[in-house]
Amino acid sequence: MLKIALSQQNYHIGHFAANTEKIIRAIRQAEAADVDLLVFSELCVCGYPPRDFLAFDDFIRQCYAVIETVRKETSRVAVIIGAPQRNPQKEGKDLFNAAWLLHEGEVKGVAHKTCLPTYDVFDEYRYFEPAFEWSVIPFKGKKIALTICEDIWALSDNPLYRTAPMDELIKSAPDLMINISASPFDYDHDDDRKEVVRANVLRYRLPMIYCNAVGSQTEIVFDGGSLVYNAAGKLVKELKYFEEDFAVVTMNDDMYRTADTAGALRAMDKEMRVSRISDPDKIIGFLTNENNIEQIFRALVLGIKDYFSKMGFSKAIIGSSGGIDSAVTLAIACEALGAANVRAVLMPSTFSSSHSVDDAVALSRNLGNPYDIIPIKNVYDAFLQTLEPVFSGTTFGIAEENIQSRSRGNLLMAIANKFGYILLNTSNKSELSTGYGTLYGDMAGGLAVLGDVYKMQVYALARYINRNTEIIPQHIIDKAPSAELRPNQKDSDSLPPYELLDKVLYQYIEKQQGPQEIIDQGIDEALVRRVLKLVNMNEYKRNQFCPIIRVSAKAFGVGRRMPIVGKYLS
Amino acid sequence: MLKIALSQQNYHIGHFAANTEKIIRAIRQAEAADVDLLVFSELCVCGYPPRDFLAFDDFIRQCYAVIETVRKETSRVAVIIGAPQRNPQKEGKDLFNAAWLLHEGEVKGVAHKTCLPTYDVFDEYRYFEPAFEWSVIPFKGKKIALTICEDIWALSDNPLYRTAPMDELIKSAPDLMINISASPFDYDHDDDRKEVVRANVLRYRLPMIYCNAVGSQTEIVFDGGSLVYNAAGKLVKELKYFEEDFAVVTMNDDMYRTADTAGALRAMDKEMRVSRISDPDKIIGFLTNENNIEQIFRALVLGIKDYFSKMGFSKAIIGSSGGIDSAVTLAIACEALGAANVRAVLMPSTFSSSHSVDDAVALSRNLGNPYDIIPIKNVYDAFLQTLEPVFSGTTFGIAEENIQSRSRGNLLMAIANKFGYILLNTSNKSELSTGYGTLYGDMAGGLAVLGDVYKMQVYALARYINRNTEIIPQHIIDKAPSAELRPNQKDSDSLPPYELLDKVLYQYIEKQQGPQEIIDQGIDEALVRRVLKLVNMNEYKRNQFCPIIRVSAKAFGVGRRMPIVGKYLS
Repeated sequence: MLKIALSQQNYHIGHFAANTEKIIRAIRQAEAADVDLLVFSELCVCGYPPRDFLAFDDFIRQCYAVIETVRKETSRVAVIIGAPQRNPQKEGKDLFNAAWLLHEGEVKGVAHKTCLPTYDVFDEYRYFEPAFEWSVIPFKGKKIALTICEDIWALSDNPLYRTAPMDELIKSAPDLMINISASPFDYDHDDDRKEVVRANVLRYRLPMIYCNAVGSQTEIVFDGGSLVYNAAGKLVKELKYFEEDFAVVTMNDDMYRTADTAGALRAMDKEMRVSRISDPDKIIGFLTNENNIEQIFRALVLGIKDYFSKMGFSKAIIGSSGGIDSAVTLAIACEALGAANVRAVLMPSTFSSSHSVDDAVALSRNLGNPYDIIPIKNVYDAFLQTLEPVFSGTTFGIAEENIQSRSRGNLLMAIANKFGYILLNTSNKSELSTGYGTLYGDMAGGLAVLGDVYKMQVYALARYINRNTEIIPQHIIDKAPSAELRPNQKDSDSLPPYELLDKVLYQYIEKQQGPQEIIDQGIDEALVRRVLKLVNMNEYKRNQFCPIIRVSAKAFGVGRRMPIVGKYLS
Repeated sequence: MLKIALSQQNYHIGHFAANTEKIIRAIRQAEAADVDLLVFSELCVCGYPPRDFLAFDDFIRQCYAVIETVRKETSRVAVIIGAPQRNPQKEGKDLFNAAWLLHEGEVKGVAHKTCLPTYDVFDEYRYFEPAFEWSVIPFKGKKIALTICEDIWALSDNPLYRTAPMDELIKSAPDLMINISASPFDYDHDDDRKEVVRANVLRYRLPMIYCNAVGSQTEIVFDGGSLVYNAAGKLVKELKYFEEDFAVVTMNDDMYRTADTAGALRAMDKEMRVSRISDPDKIIGFLTNENNIEQIFRALVLGIKDYFSKMGFSKAIIGSSGGIDSAVTLAIACEALGAANVRAVLMPSTFSSSHSVDDAVALSRNLGNPYDIIPIKNVYDAFLQTLEPVFSGTTFGIAEENIQSRSRGNLLMAIANKFGYILLNTSNKSELSTGYGTLYGDMAGGLAVLGDVYKMQVYALARYINRNTEIIPQHIIDKAPSAELRPNQKDSDSLPPYELLDKVLYQYIEKQQGPQEIIDQGIDEALVRRVLKLVNMNEYKRNQFCPIIRVSAKAFGVGRRMPIVGKYLS
């Protein structure tokens, strides 16, 4: 009776020494638990996604060196690790994305990934040749159908790939399926993943061991949640979310026993075809429901924590305006790094309302994080005075508003440079979409916490943060949002109400709906065209923005690739 | 006897009205010249590369609408245009990258691209399904083997693709090859392109019509240079470089007459295997040779011109320091936009040498462009005074240097915002590589002119600009480079000599050589490791940088995708 263990770990891209140590530590743990086979996640040897590091032969040689080290560490316990493999054929790309079965000091089998995700944040066909041969791997009397991440996602009516590798592997009558993954989080993804794994189990009538990565890599959060299903389609084991984990499952006869799955499969197929949010009136409710918001909160905490630790930093600095975005960012950063490691800087101007400083001070007192108050008046005045020969005769406008915002960005960066902080950016997705921000001003920072979070979700996060006690002062949540760059300015002077704006943005950005589709859902045509134009016109600004922690199914940062000079809807 | 015309034009991505007008205007021109077949370039309908616009069904519908319009315009003259085509099969991506033959108001044939470049700046597999069926298209008694760009590039010993579509098409005994392309410029690419087109001609013993795009799309410069070869391998027609062009070729019997090409093919194969710069001592000479520098100059002029016109701007602003980088940028911008449209701003500090302002003034007088002198002392002092409560007790360092640089960035952006300029960035590739620049300071700007140009190439560009008369004052070329952010600062305090640095950077960035390979070429190990570490550590800075006009074979902007949290050689 096979004992199989899953090792769900947080790797560091290119940090071969650290990754090797994690792998070997898990092997020792598996040996102690008398495990037969220990499964790791996709490309665990080098970390996922390694991106253009894969273009360096030196990098590939280092991957092979780790495989050699791990191979020698396998005696009783077999391991499945993920690492690139060189393509021996001349034709096609030079590498495969591979899963290696190592046992008794030998390479016992290698499987290549067939379905190479090349969309959103994924670029796998940039580096890898898809598999074109498939065979099961024998292990202790069982035949393993070994696949990699996306390989099991080609089940829909309109699959992205012409070949589903399990359809090939099933011809060799495997006994069980093992899938090693690096499948990122989005706030609607945990259900998808379970459905897809279960759909494979029901279709191929085999048990499935699914081992995912955990941890954040720049902007992509891997949330773990590795899974084991028995052949009848029952969830046997679910590993932790947003944390490293290790679990052992005993593959007794029950695990292989099939049931009549045809009915369940039909029901599931039907359910998967129904979009969860086909009704436009349900979008805001969907975006802000508590389950999604709690997951977003956890993802953002992990995203900050891992960005800092992997960059070798421990302390953050944040511009604290007394507004909702900086308040939520500050609270999440304090959760991730500890309040003592998060420095808030309040930078009032003559246009700041009196409550702004009070609210920001109250917030930092609630959180217990250090803060400074640094008025920008002198810097702003020096800019205006210096520019007087050039600006004289012109009237107050965008240029002057931006000077204030950039003065703040400059002050924050100066303190960050002086003492070794990373500046956390506080812009939300709604304002980034519409270009309602200042390059090098409030758009400055090393990592954007809320860049993939709509304004309505920022409010929901604030409510979530305050679920037990008032951490974010209620006044911050209640007051009308304002950039406070001119007297009595309000966001609503320039933008539609966020409840309406976010609905349009969601359909355009995440659902790729064109103007007519959105108008047909009953939203005012002029408003739709204006919003879409704003989004497209401001691509040049977002192009210079920092990494955005990805929480939605359609990344708003590195996974969005728009032509800047494009003249489409703009 | 067929008369075939090539229309080499500058399209605007997503600007369907403008692209349609260009296509129809060329059809009228072809009708007047009594042409049988008019060939356009790849994806001319929507502009190349359309990137994620392709995810919008609305965008595809607009492409189809243009095809419909053009179809109705074809009566006597047949046209070949490039546009996406929907994939009727459920499996695989939903689109093909297609070439459409339209004639007599009908779609007479469609060819799909097989080899989808997914490397460097290219992401085609992100959007398109590769062709899996191939057939020649009959036209007026001839059989056309119609392919798209990369399709003819799979000839090497180690091709990126498992299928070469011409190997399939040749089975149907075509009479001629037509390839529609959007093949970008790099300073070593014109020769490659001719070699590849000729290698196809020699191998398949057929004439080739090769129609390329021209014009710049954000950072990618398409340089035109469309080609016609007869079946014997002779170049019959070469269209203009960096300009729109139109040419007619008469396909007389000579065009189809083959010669014994085996010998020529063998010689060419051998030559293509020899890297042009395998000798490290020849790198700097290669990078700075006059032919390459002249081409870079022309590409940068076109890159600026098209970026401005496609973004709807006409005027640039540039920080003019009296150094070589801003001098070369200014000269190129004046060539692209006209001197009257380029405003130089001189922003001396107390650390600026006396000659800096004099040199920058002399430069602008030579160029005839307007300039302002705006000292930064008051702004800098206001920052220091404002930060005094936070900075007191610390010593002058990077933070204070960056404040100066960001004060300048802020002043330039303020003037740009006030009067509607685009700020042109002046950073060179050598300093960007090593992180020798200030985020939001000298790294600010909407477009980087020299970001893909090594420092040694910047000097060569200066000499090229001065080839007839001294435009850039000789003192700017001769003096030791300095950021002038602290007393007596020199680049050489922080960086190795540029002649050495550029050699290491070239091998690492463009040739993907690892540390050992570079050390083995006789360069000091400590220096190599330090440079590679600097490059990798500073990925986070470049991630926020503006688009860089691509002139090298390996883009340093959008075509470079490195993990920011990566821990490789850093």
